[in-house]
Amino acid sequence: MGSIGHVTPQAMHFAQPLALRSGARLSEYTLAYETYGTLNAERSNAVLVCHALNASHHVAGTYAGQARSEGWWDNLIGPGKSLDTDRFFVIGVNNLGSCFGSTGPMHTNPATGRAWGADFPVVTVEDWVDTQARLMDALGIARLAAVIGGSLGGMQALDWALRYPERLRCCIAVATAPNLSAQNIAFNEVARRAIVTDPDFHGGHFYEHGTLPRRGLRVARMIGHITYLSDDAMEEKFGRELKGDAIGYSTQEIEFQIEAYLRHQGDKFSEYFDANTYLLITRVLDYFDPAREHGGDLTRAFAGAKCKFQLVSFTTDWRFSPARSREIVKALLDNRLDVSYAEIEAPHGHDAFLLDDARYHAVLRACFDNVAADSRDAGRAEPRAAPKPARLSSGDRPTYPSGEGQS
Amino acid sequence: MGSIGHVTPQAMHFAQPLALRSGARLSEYTLAYETYGTLNAERSNAVLVCHALNASHHVAGTYAGQARSEGWWDNLIGPGKSLDTDRFFVIGVNNLGSCFGSTGPMHTNPATGRAWGADFPVVTVEDWVDTQARLMDALGIARLAAVIGGSLGGMQALDWALRYPERLRCCIAVATAPNLSAQNIAFNEVARRAIVTDPDFHGGHFYEHGTLPRRGLRVARMIGHITYLSDDAMEEKFGRELKGDAIGYSTQEIEFQIEAYLRHQGDKFSEYFDANTYLLITRVLDYFDPAREHGGDLTRAFAGAKCKFQLVSFTTDWRFSPARSREIVKALLDNRLDVSYAEIEAPHGHDAFLLDDARYHAVLRACFDNVAADSRDAGRAEPRAAPKPARLSSGDRPTYPSGEGQS
Repeated sequence: MGSIGHVTPQAMHFAQPLALRSGARLSEYTLAYETYGTLNAERSNAVLVCHALNASHHVAGTYAGQARSEGWWDNLIGPGKSLDTDRFFVIGVNNLGSCFGSTGPMHTNPATGRAWGADFPVVTVEDWVDTQARLMDALGIARLAAVIGGSLGGMQALDWALRYPERLRCCIAVATAPNLSAQNIAFNEVARRAIVTDPDFHGGHFYEHGTLPRRGLRVARMIGHITYLSDDAMEEKFGRELKGDAIGYSTQEIEFQIEAYLRHQGDKFSEYFDANTYLLITRVLDYFDPAREHGGDLTRAFAGAKCKFQLVSFTTDWRFSPARSREIVKALLDNRLDVSYAEIEAPHGHDAFLLDDARYHAVLRACFDNVAADSRDAGRAEPRAAPKPARLSSGDRPTYPSGEGQS
Repeated sequence: MGSIGHVTPQAMHFAQPLALRSGARLSEYTLAYETYGTLNAERSNAVLVCHALNASHHVAGTYAGQARSEGWWDNLIGPGKSLDTDRFFVIGVNNLGSCFGSTGPMHTNPATGRAWGADFPVVTVEDWVDTQARLMDALGIARLAAVIGGSLGGMQALDWALRYPERLRCCIAVATAPNLSAQNIAFNEVARRAIVTDPDFHGGHFYEHGTLPRRGLRVARMIGHITYLSDDAMEEKFGRELKGDAIGYSTQEIEFQIEAYLRHQGDKFSEYFDANTYLLITRVLDYFDPAREHGGDLTRAFAGAKCKFQLVSFTTDWRFSPARSREIVKALLDNRLDVSYAEIEAPHGHDAFLLDDARYHAVLRACFDNVAADSRDAGRAEPRAAPKPARLSSGDRPTYPSGEGQS
């Protein structure tokens, strides 16, 4: 069991316009992605990994010459790991509107020649999944062995199962929800207001002003971070421990360790994350609600789903609590779908989905063992002439040909 | 059962310096307060009401000529109400550092001739209770029938029991905690950072700059508000209801009703609340921790307490959960103290302590019936020469004489 070693990000350009749920159109766009492992001859062993709010296509492995550059799910993915790159061809993709290489607010709006800024069109989980499907077409993958994601990534996995039912064998949705609760939206909204009302935001066109709305981003990240951790985990890790030897009686200096930790998280985040991306991606979360167009009936929303499902939740996750996963499980069972559900006793809150918990990873290992067995069967049962993948390397921006399928 | 009717705020000036826990001294200060009902001849029927973060001495009744000017606990306090002003002499006091009349950051620092701003000394629950005790001296009240408060107000009630054990018969602490958890401190810290990093804060001296850090205050209040409500209550009240007829696909416009509600709360708050006071009072919350000087042992902290206790918590309060009240109850029982505890099944979260819930108010009514009975007994058993109260009226600022007792 080890690391994949050095990996190289790639980029795929798509020249065909993309119609978004908002009604807006992107005339062209680029997706950054990475792949690990080898696509087998039957093209039946591909696993798509979807990222959550602040992650990227860099899912596993490291970048040459960059210390501490492990991908965000490196503990799960690699040779011999639960998602075994000796068996699977793993694809990480950066979503539209993000700030790690795919087309987003920092890039040039072809209509104006200026950076998009806050004018970048609002995207949705459905838009993301459509672009991911196009990428799979370009890579010659008609059907995925699995789509996996945690949190917002889990919502993308669910959307694959809902809208591309023929194109995946297994949907693995971890620490997710069928939609955000009012409280979830509330936290997102406070974070957005902190960013938007930062005078350095300049209506989202701060790039041109040579500023960054760091204050707003810091506050946004601090709020987010509180919701990622469980009350208990915070209590255990920080409690009421003071930073210094004694209380300093100050409203602005750091008194408690938890304050130092949060400020550090906020500072770090404000240095690398784009404010417009933060606004966009919190909205992607807010809008996801597959039951809405079925009168709020989640069971009906899943009526067309065909794949197997693995749901995982964590007992102390109060952002996306086990109760939210159970809503999904119920809707799947109502449809007589094949679903396995694991509720993991873990102290870490929502963050648990990113951590190396033995029971959690054992569940995913067993799930991928089943996926591998199914994929071998599938490879034998349905050999098919898949489209040839474009050859790609870092820096290349091959133009995506027309004809992508939305089967 | 009705309203007290029109009430008049009063003010008491204290010329004797006050030594604060921080080591700082206030050479003089004024407390705003209100009283309702009549102090009986035995001076045994006085009840002190302590306020929480953003409230004041205006606890019940209305102000003449001001619509919607009900005091913040008017549903509890009045003729025939649970805290019956036909039986009790009720005192509401605005705490030091607040922004509703008592000496605070908006007032002039006698040492500089400028507004205190962020230089106003950091205060604590203990400092507040000391000033409340001086006010009781000035009003000629040697011993209170009860001290009652919710949330931060409950902490003050507990501190009375800890440090002035002879001066109250009953401590009524509602929806409170023996100290803040790391998560509680974390929320306070994010709110503070939002205020302090608002460019209009000007290091706390915004008064001189003719600005108000409204952006920061708005975000602070929005964060606070999320923690006052239960997840369920928010879900029930707002759910995922849209503001308009359809999704507008905007990161900055209001999409969901919960967003409109939060923004409204933030806007309203930023118009009337002082930013420096917000910083100070969140620190008052952070610092309260009576067990700290007893090696973290809450039981030892309460060893000297003598009064009766009524604790109340609410099942859906995740800010100050029932578990936190139970910690206090355990410490009291360990000391063989007389304690009654009610855990009220209420959907409203922390806000429940301000709401008119029949079961909750019935518990307090029963408690005050007992307090009244005890007070009558006490009035008969221990007639004592109490100091004569100063005569006060609105606008008067009688100087507080020396000799206040810290029994």
